[in-house]
Amino acid sequence: MNQPANDKKDISIVCFSGEFDKLLAAYTIATGAAATNRNVTMFFTFWGLNALKKERGRKPIGKDFLSRVFNWLMGGRNNLPLSRLNFGGASPKLMSGMMKKSNVAQLDELMDAATALGIRHFACEMSMHILGVSKDDLIDDVKEVVGVATFLNESENAHIIFI
Amino acid sequence: MNQPANDKKDISIVCFSGEFDKLLAAYTIATGAAATNRNVTMFFTFWGLNALKKERGRKPIGKDFLSRVFNWLMGGRNNLPLSRLNFGGASPKLMSGMMKKSNVAQLDELMDAATALGIRHFACEMSMHILGVSKDDLIDDVKEVVGVATFLNESENAHIIFI
Amino acid sequence: MNQPANDKKDISIVCFSGEFDKLLAAYTIATGAAATNRNVTMFFTFWGLNALKKERGRKPIGKDFLSRVFNWLMGGRNNLPLSRLNFGGASPKLMSGMMKKSNVAQLDELMDAATALGIRHFACEMSMHILGVSKDDLIDDVKEVVGVATFLNESENAHIIFI
Repeated sequence: MNQPANDKKDISIVCFSGEFDKLLAAYTIATGAAATNRNVTMFFTFWGLNALKKERGRKPIGKDFLSRVFNWLMGGRNNLPLSRLNFGGASPKLMSGMMKKSNVAQLDELMDAATALGIRHFACEMSMHILGVSKDDLIDDVKEVVGVATFLNESENAHIIFI
Repeated sequence: MNQPANDKKDISIVCFSGEFDKLLAAYTIATGAAATNRNVTMFFTFWGLNALKKERGRKPIGKDFLSRVFNWLMGGRNNLPLSRLNFGGASPKLMSGMMKKSNVAQLDELMDAATALGIRHFACEMSMHILGVSKDDLIDDVKEVVGVATFLNESENAHIIFI
Repeated sequence: MNQPANDKKDISIVCFSGEFDKLLAAYTIATGAAATNRNVTMFFTFWGLNALKKERGRKPIGKDFLSRVFNWLMGGRNNLPLSRLNFGGASPKLMSGMMKKSNVAQLDELMDAATALGIRHFACEMSMHILGVSKDDLIDDVKEVVGVATFLNESENAHIIFI
């Protein structure tokens, strides 16, 4: 599904932190904006890339030793920490339980909704290069690998939100 | 006091992190903007809600066990951590001492100024629902509990700043 | 070098967090924006000031005991922590190694590029006052020490990005 033309201001979100709670915030803003007829672009960089890895657990992606260690440590979507009170990874699971109980969409559902709503997912070329992550390591929602200049050009008429 | 009409761009601040130093930054930007004749909206979500709890200490707010534990752990305005070098909560107190010595407005004073300047405080409906926080648990400055779509609509002509 | 007039939207970055990875992101956005003909302003506040200290190591700057301790703890450009997986300061060095291997500009080079591209560096008056940091403690790139109102006025037509 393509995003409709409209006269509301676009939303561009830089997903840098890649923490569980901050990604929830990013996707809540993104899907809320897209559902109310705004064009939304999400740009995943650095820690944010972890949420887009095909492999949800820890996997030593990369060409050299350092990047393989670093990617293993950062892990995938199942290893996203809470930005505070993480308790060794227990809290994101507790949080998901609280969200389920409250009948609120969880991260996986929000990410599916983002795709259904036509939200564009850009991955940051430079971060991928440094961390040794290739496009094949990322989920299919990522249509384009771009640099910061492209992201800024595409966000000219947007609110830019750095999370 | 209502906010005056003017031709300067509005300021909308998403207070997500709820750390002592980041809230200081948020309120400094907010009051500085309002004092120079800008319309300012603050949207408190997730950890940011802790700063708005009536009860300043730790209190087990919520309907079920998990949210009660979580709210107790997060605490209120007296328990906001520094984002770094927190030293078990000692640093926010040291920081307040340094601010007092420097004759700079402290967090409580900035929050009072925000109210006096007519800054709007929105609380995030979804976060409150997940964390089991009700409007009665929050200070009276919070006039409205809204969703992300309302916040975005109200911020159409604003700089959106995510803190 | 002065920044050229152009019809692209300006970029204003608030460098608050002062973590190694977030400053890399800030300078990557800043230099990418300036290189594609945008006016860029960077406003350094709180932890962000550490990146601008002349003294790159730990130095007890300040007039009283508390600020001297705090500045020593925060340190300078050589002590910027990674926002996660810092491992006592080992990670920023590993990260720099990975960036060198990937032929990507490192923080020092990005900062030099920012100067060459005419990016304006503002330092936050209030943070400096609280932390006991004077203009003489900061590198020469910092041309002006300003308050939040000045920053907002200068950012009227900019994307404001809080990092």
